[in-house]
Amino acid sequence: MALFLAVDAGGTSTRAAVLDQFGNCLGFGKAGPGNPISSGVERATESVSEASRQALGELSEPRPELQGAALAMAGGSVEVPLDGIQSTLRAHGLQNKAMIESDLLAMYLSGTHHSDGFALVSGTGAICARVEQFETSHVADGLGWLLGDQGSGYWIGHEAVLAVAAALDGRAPRTMLTGALLEQLAVPRSALRIEGRPAELQSFLLKIYALRPIQLAGFATLAFDAAEQGDQVAAEILRRAGRALLHSLAAVRPEGTALPLVIGGSILRAGSPVLQTVQEALPGVAVTRVEDGLAGAASIVLRRAGITVDEAVFTRIRDSLGGLRNR
Amino acid sequence: MALFLAVDAGGTSTRAAVLDQFGNCLGFGKAGPGNPISSGVERATESVSEASRQALGELSEPRPELQGAALAMAGGSVEVPLDGIQSTLRAHGLQNKAMIESDLLAMYLSGTHHSDGFALVSGTGAICARVEQFETSHVADGLGWLLGDQGSGYWIGHEAVLAVAAALDGRAPRTMLTGALLEQLAVPRSALRIEGRPAELQSFLLKIYALRPIQLAGFATLAFDAAEQGDQVAAEILRRAGRALLHSLAAVRPEGTALPLVIGGSILRAGSPVLQTVQEALPGVAVTRVEDGLAGAASIVLRRAGITVDEAVFTRIRDSLGGLRNR
Repeated sequence: MALFLAVDAGGTSTRAAVLDQFGNCLGFGKAGPGNPISSGVERATESVSEASRQALGELSEPRPELQGAALAMAGGSVEVPLDGIQSTLRAHGLQNKAMIESDLLAMYLSGTHHSDGFALVSGTGAICARVEQFETSHVADGLGWLLGDQGSGYWIGHEAVLAVAAALDGRAPRTMLTGALLEQLAVPRSALRIEGRPAELQSFLLKIYALRPIQLAGFATLAFDAAEQGDQVAAEILRRAGRALLHSLAAVRPEGTALPLVIGGSILRAGSPVLQTVQEALPGVAVTRVEDGLAGAASIVLRRAGITVDEAVFTRIRDSLGGLRNR
Repeated sequence: MALFLAVDAGGTSTRAAVLDQFGNCLGFGKAGPGNPISSGVERATESVSEASRQALGELSEPRPELQGAALAMAGGSVEVPLDGIQSTLRAHGLQNKAMIESDLLAMYLSGTHHSDGFALVSGTGAICARVEQFETSHVADGLGWLLGDQGSGYWIGHEAVLAVAAALDGRAPRTMLTGALLEQLAVPRSALRIEGRPAELQSFLLKIYALRPIQLAGFATLAFDAAEQGDQVAAEILRRAGRALLHSLAAVRPEGTALPLVIGGSILRAGSPVLQTVQEALPGVAVTRVEDGLAGAASIVLRRAGITVDEAVFTRIRDSLGGLRNR
């Protein structure tokens, strides 16, 4: 039996799986943030090590050698020195170097074994890609909070903040988001006005500028909550988020294609109004939702070892991984 | 003869004037940035001192005592310790404390002697206000780059950057802004693609994230240039900037009012397409454009001393100040 290690290192958590050459996942582990850009190389190394250690620890001793490893990470991670991660994986018994792979490709391959198709992800950021012959041939957006990420959690959180600011100074209709955001930021409600402006708007402004911009992504959940309670302003923000994602997708996906579409990220979770907007605009398109890129990383590590990942192997990866996760 | 000092401390430059009780401006001075929030208290103090010194230096000795001073500054400056500025003005012969006044009110009163009306300013930021009885009774926007400033120089620069990013990855039409921005940022043009994305987009992204967000305001001029050369994407950004300003103005200004509207800021300079959009939406409205808040600060210092600033006094301030500036 040959053993392989697959790791999906994300901004919130890192997941690892150990699998055999048939796609049977035999061990699973989970640890903290693993994105070396947003969390730092040291933290990412710890998380990758810890998740891998857990996954390998589930196998009985003596276990066969690790034949290879694939490490799915955010694009651009290759520009960060990853020696620490490589040596920590050697300490876990990996003989050769781990392959660093695109997390977007891993996300896509978590949903399908097809060489060609499309991926659309909206979490803190938003990105979409066309995949051809198991490579991302055309990427749209994914440019971060200042340059893009349109329809992402950041985008929704920022729009919520803009809507509250505009509602407070009379440029836009009232919204439930105001109460929710001011409460979350511990801004006391007040009818006081100072120099022509509500005092609570001034306090809100100071609280927002004290944050790092990317932290606005944390307010996206308030928009989902308000929309669910019937708030029209929040509902419209979510509709526009869906349309923004469709707009980005259209840049990489020819209309009418029958190739698979894999989606992921918390903003497109099951039941999300944003997902609904996306699906309604793509009638008849088979959309597969995935939780993360771990199954795809597993698929990649086998394929790089020369093993064909057909529907049977892909299904085995997905089902055995699902079994380990749902214990 | 009684003498008064008026200072308008802005983010780019600081201007000072010395005037008599009839509104005759007798001295004028100009120095560097005077906003204590964006430039620091020390720099602001230097600028206020230097501009005041210049203005006072134009009077022949011995000159009468300074009866009062008004210092127009960005809202929120009152929360900054201004003792240094007060003592520097005492060193210039001011007996009592300088009055700190809103730069927005000073801008409005640079354009009219009427107690009631509206001000709309779009420079790096954007703000508008209703003025009632010489006080700003209702302010809209002016909330900074992350929370508002819609239709401002920052907003235009950011939209230009978004348009270039979207054009480069195929989400939006081509625009002259791409060449102009990449050249300004010294991004080499390249047809190379890396992981499904143009290499020049990746370089562009790194250059943009190396800036402080507010620096995007510097790209607004590229949008004006491109629009003038017939670029439709840039022209549409400027039209939307105008509509955003009108939207903010509508929050403080009842439709059909006959009260004066004073406008200022580089984005609304004479001949600007943004100004054109604003004026076309307000047919028959008398719009007065002002360069800064210095005449208004002069008007305020007289009024606070109990002197009525009627049309004659206001005209005297404006004309004598214009004479000194145009030497």
